[in-house]
Amino acid sequence: MSPPVTIAVDAMGGDGAPAVEVEGSLLAAEEFGARILLVGRQRALRRELSRHFPAKGQIEIVNASDVVTMHDNPSVALRSKKDSSIRVAAKLVHEGKAAGLVSAGNTGAVMASALQGMGRIPGVKRPAVAQVFPTGSGGRTLVLDVGANVDCTAAMLAEFAVMGHVYARVMFGCERPRVGLLSIGEEDHKGNELTRETMALLRKRTLNFVGNVEGRDLFSGNADVVVCDGFVGNVALKVSEGLVSTIKTMLIKSLEATVMRQIGYGLAKGAFEEFQKRVDYEEYGGAPMLGVRGGAIICHGRSTRQAIKNAVRVAIDFETGGIMRQIETTLERNLEAGGEPRETAARPVTPTRPR
Amino acid sequence: MSPPVTIAVDAMGGDGAPAVEVEGSLLAAEEFGARILLVGRQRALRRELSRHFPAKGQIEIVNASDVVTMHDNPSVALRSKKDSSIRVAAKLVHEGKAAGLVSAGNTGAVMASALQGMGRIPGVKRPAVAQVFPTGSGGRTLVLDVGANVDCTAAMLAEFAVMGHVYARVMFGCERPRVGLLSIGEEDHKGNELTRETMALLRKRTLNFVGNVEGRDLFSGNADVVVCDGFVGNVALKVSEGLVSTIKTMLIKSLEATVMRQIGYGLAKGAFEEFQKRVDYEEYGGAPMLGVRGGAIICHGRSTRQAIKNAVRVAIDFETGGIMRQIETTLERNLEAGGEPRETAARPVTPTRPR
Repeated sequence: MSPPVTIAVDAMGGDGAPAVEVEGSLLAAEEFGARILLVGRQRALRRELSRHFPAKGQIEIVNASDVVTMHDNPSVALRSKKDSSIRVAAKLVHEGKAAGLVSAGNTGAVMASALQGMGRIPGVKRPAVAQVFPTGSGGRTLVLDVGANVDCTAAMLAEFAVMGHVYARVMFGCERPRVGLLSIGEEDHKGNELTRETMALLRKRTLNFVGNVEGRDLFSGNADVVVCDGFVGNVALKVSEGLVSTIKTMLIKSLEATVMRQIGYGLAKGAFEEFQKRVDYEEYGGAPMLGVRGGAIICHGRSTRQAIKNAVRVAIDFETGGIMRQIETTLERNLEAGGEPRETAARPVTPTRPR
Repeated sequence: MSPPVTIAVDAMGGDGAPAVEVEGSLLAAEEFGARILLVGRQRALRRELSRHFPAKGQIEIVNASDVVTMHDNPSVALRSKKDSSIRVAAKLVHEGKAAGLVSAGNTGAVMASALQGMGRIPGVKRPAVAQVFPTGSGGRTLVLDVGANVDCTAAMLAEFAVMGHVYARVMFGCERPRVGLLSIGEEDHKGNELTRETMALLRKRTLNFVGNVEGRDLFSGNADVVVCDGFVGNVALKVSEGLVSTIKTMLIKSLEATVMRQIGYGLAKGAFEEFQKRVDYEEYGGAPMLGVRGGAIICHGRSTRQAIKNAVRVAIDFETGGIMRQIETTLERNLEAGGEPRETAARPVTPTRPR
């Protein structure tokens, strides 16, 4: 049996830190057999861990004295808080002591620390954050960039396309992931200057490029990977999150308006729980930052322990699937004209399951 | 009593044309006391009208021999189909024979025809299409641009802010509409080059500018008007439409999975109908194109007669509220430093109600 994968968890990041991070890590250590390095203030983490003694998995504490808060300016925090939990976690990956990191902290600080601390994969100019969207038919679509790069060039979007292709192939198990370009009409000429330039680049590549897709295709299942500028991607992500929560509020208010509806709601409750599970970010285990050396999984500040656990699972699969190496080789091949990403030995990951 | 407002309805535009347009026009003529000019192929419209004889309102047919289809390239259609129903409708507005137009046709062709046929309000450089989004608390947020201008400058976005301000004040009855700039973080420096430049411009204006808002604020009620580039706005709109329809599909599938849930669904059905009504574009009566001379209300291709009727109501309110003139004067005042849009005589419209 192969040795356990080691993942560094920034235990001081999220709104519920460190309790949520510790509980999520314990679940992950037990279910996936991972080795977890809990990074943060030693005393607080020891106290938190003691409440779950004895732990049913391999958990170690790595001390970090500073904490980056949600209100910190990421670049200022990076300079002034040298011993922050997120910086120490990134350093552990850089030094090879962990394969990847998970953080529910200040997103800007996590991105900056991962980029600075872990470095880029050779050939990658701009790492991107990718988010999994659920589709209506039960599938998944990977959207990138959702916020790391707000002013993109066509070359950057083409790079995102390659990284998304690799991620979807390994993590979703698609042999030839359909890559779409987010635009405002299906025809090649529809869109803005950036999408038209990107279209020209992607038409030359040998990815399974399906052309322009529209906003609704984030959920339609018409593409496995959707590429966009980080500004647009972030707006799309926030629109989706906002709409899901608005719809939940509207529906529940309406469902509680009469006694008859309350009874109906009670009988049909399982359906709402299923729905909630389908649309909740928790199930998708955070957003991977693609292009840095190692897995860097960014979680929502409001993450639950379940979300942290699932993010650790993604970090493990990222490592065992060899995504980093495949991004490097696929980018190389795609820089050559007619380079065929499929020629890279496909190595789909066996998804991590509870043991 | 004031004479009825005349609205030109492009009767050949939508997926259900001309039946849906004729029925919607009949409803509007009867309920709002409007005079409707049905524009399209005379024979087809006469036949359709004869099925509803005698009409309970003022309806007249204006012949137009060409039809722009959803597959036509808008600029080609504009040149080659000189006698298309949308062009003739725009001409009626230009000639003062109608106060506004309603069309569920090819969106690109409607925008191009309205711009070319009706012309711009003095001072307006780039008309924009605005869309009303429902908020969770039962309010409304106007988002513009949602697709007329894909590569915007800061000056264009500042112009959209003024036009949105006027529209929200008149149509929503807000005294000082809160205007937000769509970005990816609340702080002024968050965003891309375009939003940062626009921020600098809007901070100088005297609109009730609330700064950056995020994607989720399209539904949060934190702003009455949200300004963005037409590419971003169109993606946001399509993401919302796609997500609503995905959620409906998911929920219904899940609600029909067991007998118990089916019973619950039956009891709670009113709640779903309310929800559907709240999120459906039909209720909001189409998207106004702001900045052209007259009301130009763009409807969804899949509009029902109810959607057409509501769009006619918006076109009437657009006219009686004096939105065109107010956009002109408010833009003038805002070009002067410290110009205060509130000084314009507020003239909120009395919403059109069934008679």
